[in-house]
Amino acid sequence: MKKIPHKHKSKKIRHAPPGSAPGILNIPEDAPRPVIHVFIYNEKECREEQLFSTADMLNILQKYPGMLFWFDIHGFGDKKFLEQLSDSFSIHRLQMEDVVNVYQRPKADESQGPLFLISRVLSDKDGMLQNDQLSIFSGSNFLISLQEHYEDILDPVRVRVRTGKGFMRVHGIDYLVYSLMDAALDNYYPLLEKTGDKLDDLQEELLAAPTREALNRVLQIKRDLIVMRRSIWSERDKIIDILRSNFAQVKDEIKIFYRDSYDHCIQIMDLVESYKEVTASLMDVYHSSVSNRLNQVMKVLTIISTIFIPLTFIVGVYGMNFAGNDPATGKSLPWNMPELYSPYGYIGVMVFMLLIVVAQILFFRKKGWLSKS
Amino acid sequence: MKKIPHKHKSKKIRHAPPGSAPGILNIPEDAPRPVIHVFIYNEKECREEQLFSTADMLNILQKYPGMLFWFDIHGFGDKKFLEQLSDSFSIHRLQMEDVVNVYQRPKADESQGPLFLISRVLSDKDGMLQNDQLSIFSGSNFLISLQEHYEDILDPVRVRVRTGKGFMRVHGIDYLVYSLMDAALDNYYPLLEKTGDKLDDLQEELLAAPTREALNRVLQIKRDLIVMRRSIWSERDKIIDILRSNFAQVKDEIKIFYRDSYDHCIQIMDLVESYKEVTASLMDVYHSSVSNRLNQVMKVLTIISTIFIPLTFIVGVYGMNFAGNDPATGKSLPWNMPELYSPYGYIGVMVFMLLIVVAQILFFRKKGWLSKS
Amino acid sequence: MKKIPHKHKSKKIRHAPPGSAPGILNIPEDAPRPVIHVFIYNEKECREEQLFSTADMLNILQKYPGMLFWFDIHGFGDKKFLEQLSDSFSIHRLQMEDVVNVYQRPKADESQGPLFLISRVLSDKDGMLQNDQLSIFSGSNFLISLQEHYEDILDPVRVRVRTGKGFMRVHGIDYLVYSLMDAALDNYYPLLEKTGDKLDDLQEELLAAPTREALNRVLQIKRDLIVMRRSIWSERDKIIDILRSNFAQVKDEIKIFYRDSYDHCIQIMDLVESYKEVTASLMDVYHSSVSNRLNQVMKVLTIISTIFIPLTFIVGVYGMNFAGNDPATGKSLPWNMPELYSPYGYIGVMVFMLLIVVAQILFFRKKGWLSKS
Amino acid sequence: MKKIPHKHKSKKIRHAPPGSAPGILNIPEDAPRPVIHVFIYNEKECREEQLFSTADMLNILQKYPGMLFWFDIHGFGDKKFLEQLSDSFSIHRLQMEDVVNVYQRPKADESQGPLFLISRVLSDKDGMLQNDQLSIFSGSNFLISLQEHYEDILDPVRVRVRTGKGFMRVHGIDYLVYSLMDAALDNYYPLLEKTGDKLDDLQEELLAAPTREALNRVLQIKRDLIVMRRSIWSERDKIIDILRSNFAQVKDEIKIFYRDSYDHCIQIMDLVESYKEVTASLMDVYHSSVSNRLNQVMKVLTIISTIFIPLTFIVGVYGMNFAGNDPATGKSLPWNMPELYSPYGYIGVMVFMLLIVVAQILFFRKKGWLSKS
Amino acid sequence: MKKIPHKHKSKKIRHAPPGSAPGILNIPEDAPRPVIHVFIYNEKECREEQLFSTADMLNILQKYPGMLFWFDIHGFGDKKFLEQLSDSFSIHRLQMEDVVNVYQRPKADESQGPLFLISRVLSDKDGMLQNDQLSIFSGSNFLISLQEHYEDILDPVRVRVRTGKGFMRVHGIDYLVYSLMDAALDNYYPLLEKTGDKLDDLQEELLAAPTREALNRVLQIKRDLIVMRRSIWSERDKIIDILRSNFAQVKDEIKIFYRDSYDHCIQIMDLVESYKEVTASLMDVYHSSVSNRLNQVMKVLTIISTIFIPLTFIVGVYGMNFAGNDPATGKSLPWNMPELYSPYGYIGVMVFMLLIVVAQILFFRKKGWLSKS
Repeated sequence: MKKIPHKHKSKKIRHAPPGSAPGILNIPEDAPRPVIHVFIYNEKECREEQLFSTADMLNILQKYPGMLFWFDIHGFGDKKFLEQLSDSFSIHRLQMEDVVNVYQRPKADESQGPLFLISRVLSDKDGMLQNDQLSIFSGSNFLISLQEHYEDILDPVRVRVRTGKGFMRVHGIDYLVYSLMDAALDNYYPLLEKTGDKLDDLQEELLAAPTREALNRVLQIKRDLIVMRRSIWSERDKIIDILRSNFAQVKDEIKIFYRDSYDHCIQIMDLVESYKEVTASLMDVYHSSVSNRLNQVMKVLTIISTIFIPLTFIVGVYGMNFAGNDPATGKSLPWNMPELYSPYGYIGVMVFMLLIVVAQILFFRKKGWLSKS
Repeated sequence: MKKIPHKHKSKKIRHAPPGSAPGILNIPEDAPRPVIHVFIYNEKECREEQLFSTADMLNILQKYPGMLFWFDIHGFGDKKFLEQLSDSFSIHRLQMEDVVNVYQRPKADESQGPLFLISRVLSDKDGMLQNDQLSIFSGSNFLISLQEHYEDILDPVRVRVRTGKGFMRVHGIDYLVYSLMDAALDNYYPLLEKTGDKLDDLQEELLAAPTREALNRVLQIKRDLIVMRRSIWSERDKIIDILRSNFAQVKDEIKIFYRDSYDHCIQIMDLVESYKEVTASLMDVYHSSVSNRLNQVMKVLTIISTIFIPLTFIVGVYGMNFAGNDPATGKSLPWNMPELYSPYGYIGVMVFMLLIVVAQILFFRKKGWLSKS
Repeated sequence: MKKIPHKHKSKKIRHAPPGSAPGILNIPEDAPRPVIHVFIYNEKECREEQLFSTADMLNILQKYPGMLFWFDIHGFGDKKFLEQLSDSFSIHRLQMEDVVNVYQRPKADESQGPLFLISRVLSDKDGMLQNDQLSIFSGSNFLISLQEHYEDILDPVRVRVRTGKGFMRVHGIDYLVYSLMDAALDNYYPLLEKTGDKLDDLQEELLAAPTREALNRVLQIKRDLIVMRRSIWSERDKIIDILRSNFAQVKDEIKIFYRDSYDHCIQIMDLVESYKEVTASLMDVYHSSVSNRLNQVMKVLTIISTIFIPLTFIVGVYGMNFAGNDPATGKSLPWNMPELYSPYGYIGVMVFMLLIVVAQILFFRKKGWLSKS
Repeated sequence: MKKIPHKHKSKKIRHAPPGSAPGILNIPEDAPRPVIHVFIYNEKECREEQLFSTADMLNILQKYPGMLFWFDIHGFGDKKFLEQLSDSFSIHRLQMEDVVNVYQRPKADESQGPLFLISRVLSDKDGMLQNDQLSIFSGSNFLISLQEHYEDILDPVRVRVRTGKGFMRVHGIDYLVYSLMDAALDNYYPLLEKTGDKLDDLQEELLAAPTREALNRVLQIKRDLIVMRRSIWSERDKIIDILRSNFAQVKDEIKIFYRDSYDHCIQIMDLVESYKEVTASLMDVYHSSVSNRLNQVMKVLTIISTIFIPLTFIVGVYGMNFAGNDPATGKSLPWNMPELYSPYGYIGVMVFMLLIVVAQILFFRKKGWLSKS
Repeated sequence: MKKIPHKHKSKKIRHAPPGSAPGILNIPEDAPRPVIHVFIYNEKECREEQLFSTADMLNILQKYPGMLFWFDIHGFGDKKFLEQLSDSFSIHRLQMEDVVNVYQRPKADESQGPLFLISRVLSDKDGMLQNDQLSIFSGSNFLISLQEHYEDILDPVRVRVRTGKGFMRVHGIDYLVYSLMDAALDNYYPLLEKTGDKLDDLQEELLAAPTREALNRVLQIKRDLIVMRRSIWSERDKIIDILRSNFAQVKDEIKIFYRDSYDHCIQIMDLVESYKEVTASLMDVYHSSVSNRLNQVMKVLTIISTIFIPLTFIVGVYGMNFAGNDPATGKSLPWNMPELYSPYGYIGVMVFMLLIVVAQILFFRKKGWLSKS
């Protein structure tokens, strides 16, 4: 699993083939079939049911007048169902296409039918950044949330609807909308905390040894942070949109909560930016570690070479075979290496070489090459 | 063909000679002659004809009253025809000049006569990015599309007009305009998918061996992404223009489709940006691979040198010719290299050198220079 | 303590668990219990008291009509007290959550109840940048300031309230608000002065020896400057907000003081930016120092090697054992190294080598390799 | 001439001495004397004359009522003439100062008297970027163009005025204004084409050999592109200004031509930006070429050294003089280098060394160090 | 003096201690005492006097009714005087604080009392960038200029007031304001010219030898340019402010002069930006010079080593002591180095080595390592 981050398979975006007519749903083969769970609640009570079709959904809306309905749907593997859903709740086909072609930017759109909202749900799955989509349609008394997979990130909200904790059942559908989107937003905090921990570990690692594997992990985190930044910026734009527009489905008393979400966005953006700075400085640490290592290697080579190469030359001199006597005449050749025949020649050379070594060591110490760093 | 991307011949822009009068069409010598194909359709039927002059075009407009007309033209190699086209459909000469001088930014212009739209059609041709132009003039009941070459990218739209699939024949000319521009936009997806695959391959390659050839391909992809980014930004500006302006030829009910195109633009921009980030991190991978290689080369040199240079010195010492006896007097010179005459001198030296090697290897292991990375 | 800057533990943001209901106070276990100090003053006099509950606070407000009240509170370790405070002074729960979840951007908010202001108080604690929060609620005749720890940064303001120096007791609560926020802002100056001194020292150090430890300190300062920049930008936005909005609690005659604060913000931003430039150029100095060192090491290696390697070759030549006489026949082999038997062979070789050394030294001098830099 | 681009003499801006009164003309000593050429034309005819003073200019204006006048002036070397010109045509002194102090940004100014326009005329002169200024004053029936040197860039316009080709003599003075400015703008195209060719050549060169001279040329082109970018941005701003303002001297029917110029600006900006990207990637190519070269040099050194240094050690071993017999006693010392006396010792050592070489070559091949790149 | 630029002492900003009351003047100990010089002028005459107190100033205002007054003050070393000045001319204390706490951004402020203007006066003092402040208070008939030191930069304006050259005494106080600010602005030109000359010299130097000292000077110039850019941007903002606001003290007929100043600002900004680009490319030149040097050093090492190391091995081979005869039996060992006893062995080896050297030189020439660059 350590090796996974290396293989950064580029993100695939699901889209219809070029030139095809818009608004046609393009369901992947292996998509899980939809599961429809409904919460029917008012201030006093909350009941839950499992539904199986849009007909069930419409029936239950009529069966409990005056109640609020949260249709909590996962799985897109039924094109027919999604088309019926679109028709029954007057959802535009292009919006339903956005629900299915998961990789849409966070946005809020009330151009037609119920208020349509998209949030991105980022999470960490085995060290890989998971980027899921939460689509919400909000009418006056019902909310439809659609997700491709069942995400336990909404579980705290489900619990709050069931138990009636906080303001959940006091306020209307718009507070539920806010709560779902806030749950998606809150998810950034543990994600960033994990990222921070990873960066701390990487700093330690890089200072100890600048491995390529660690560098790859830094680059991976950098890419993840870029994804987060893009998501949170759009998330922020969406919230500004909600605060400024007078969407029918967002009452003024709820806006103070969105202002709080807005502050959270800013806070998350700050964190993401500061982690980006940390990755940049980790790159600096990496490069300085690498060049430091090279320097150390070169220093060892240079010290050893500059000490021994001259010495080897000197001993080479006394390994020359200049003859002390002319082999033909036997006459002495007194200028040819008389040191070889001196009684203290050997010791003299050894002492001379020792002095050279000492001089060089003093030179290196002065240069500071013998210090650690 | 592998070598082609290296030769990045800078893009030539076709333009009139400096100082020449504006609005004069400047047709290249070797331009293919225009081919005019017309689709005549309404909600119920669609017929197609091949035309040969602007006269034919005007005739057919009168022959089928109440129908919609799509004049699908390729090839600019007939200056006269283009001038007549300009006069017959009250197209400004400067606009016709833009059609011919292909490299115009995407734009929408209704200052005079029919609505004039330019889209860029990007495609991959043998690994090179192809950047073609689709020019559209849209009147109330006719649409003229002009391309330099026949691009099969519009084929899905042609099929939809012929077969009446989707909303094509339900809506008017403005939906046809949208469909053509959306087809051009959709083309980015397969292009980017290909780019993503190339980047994945390059990452593998660069980690294995940082070749210059791979670097060149990264730089080429980076340049292509810059071209894409510029195009998609203008495309987005054009769509914003269409959404905000009240062009006579764009009805309000069509605008929801343009909003969808707008979202696609944003999505494509996101993808382009994230691929740009990937190219940047591939550059980092390349540079770290290169410096890693240098480090490894230097480590091998240093290890071999620092082990053998001192040893060579030692054996050099015992290759010196200091005489054990004074050749003149024959007297023993006991201080001159007595080791040479010791029975275990040779073995002693060999053991001493072995100890040095062991000490050095321990030193290198401690430094971590014997590890792989 | 020298080692502390290396361990850049990523900043932890205090936040509620994801999905939890908003407005619920999330007090850390080890938070110090709140200490409530009150200043009761008007133009003529000032008295101080220690209070213990919100009830005390409400009582004292009634006991001294016509006076101004500054409730100076530190420590959040009492959830109940904070909730009562929120209820007694009609503070929104989300605002109280912002007070407790310390890391909020500077902001001004008058949407509900008293004017709510957040300032960041940056200080240097043992060489680490401390980033604390000052929260202020300002009513028409009272001000509540909340801090997690007792910060002596407000002491000069406390003295000015006590002694009535300056305009403090002449103006109303809004001037006190301004004074507290200005005190937080003024704190940047000594902080930046310290940073400037550190950078001056680091420049000296890096020019002398490019240690990794110094590089780490540069990176640390860079990160601190980024934190400061972010804070001061928000501080500026807050002040612009105060200047433009017509907050009930900020009278027009006070605005000229805020304009002065605005100028201070700009000044601080300038300083921060120029220090960021200095850190960037210190990075350049570091990298140039490192590559300079490598160059010097390599030059020494190259000079020593290129001088002695050829010499060693030459002496090796005369260490070859080519026989002057055929050992079998005893016939002279005159082509085999006659130099060895020449009377001036040895001296000739020595002189030849000396000439080589001189030539090389001249070559190196011409190349400029013997110079220092 | 090859060497010229290296010496990037920083551009000198002509300006009055600090503190001097504004509006005083500051003519350089060696400026050429003004040459006044006038085109007098209407729809039907065009005559040309050479004039010598402002008096001549005023006379001729009265002599041909109902005609249009283009005073085409080069050379500023007559302060008196320029002052009279300023007075005769009610041109503000500060504007006349802008004409003379050539390096003004492109701008359009109608605050007083005739419409005042500045264009920059960029051209390539012996490989150096030439940056000249075209100043235009446009009244209702006359146009005064001023240039420091005679630029043949306006020649096509002169021809069009003479021959009456295109719309030149159909429209009024405002079309002449447009034509002059468009001629200046069109000049970017051949300039950029030349730049593109240079960059293509440089890419070839850098891939072959990363010389410093080529790097300098890349840097020079980068600087030229920056100059072009700045000019074209201001040119664009000027055109936007003309399109938005209701200058008396620019009729609405001419604005469509300016919209075309605007598109040209955008196109030129695109080209400049893409060439800047190319220079950036050429820098990358250069640096990767340089480090590639270093790597190759080091690989050769390492391969040769690691092969021969151990071998030299081995032959050194057998060059040691350990005595096989004790010279004093003549007793055999069997542990001292018995290999030397073995009949196959020499061959054995040679084979052993051959094996070492083969092993090393296999190791290098496995490392990929023997491949070319 | 050569060493000064290395010691970039970070700029100290003068400010009051944190938390102190605003508007309290904080005079440095060693500040020079104020010198008050007054110019009393109208269209016809100009007289000058030396004054000693605010009382003198008020007296002289009454003594010469209908005249214009320029109080030209240097030195802040008298807190009392400044306070009286503030009171006598209804200057806000915070503005007077800005005058004294010299480092304020250029700004224009008419919120209260006379129009308050700050300009920055940049100059070169012994190679260091000097950044002084010129503060101006402008009433309807008087102008007070305050500077910390006597700057001869205003001398040309003083001369123009005295002699009545140009429009100086024709226009009112507002023209004097303009003239002072324009004099400060004009000062950028010689400063930038000097910077340009320095950069030209540095380019020469860096191409010759990439010394650290030259790098430091480049970095210093870069920092100076950043200071200039910041100043000129604020200067521009101030002028835009003056042009847009309807300050009572700036008549419309003067605004055309400010438009000229605005153009100068743009021109200066262009120059500063282009010099910043030059510093960036000098950094590139430096780094390429350094790596070029390293490459050359390594090439010399590699060439010498790869030529001589193999040769040394070969001569080492023939220095081995393999015995030609078994010392015990005296039997010939024909496989042990028969070359040594061949008559042409020595010459053969020498020729062989010569061939190796020639082959290597050919290899190096092919690689292009023997060329200069």
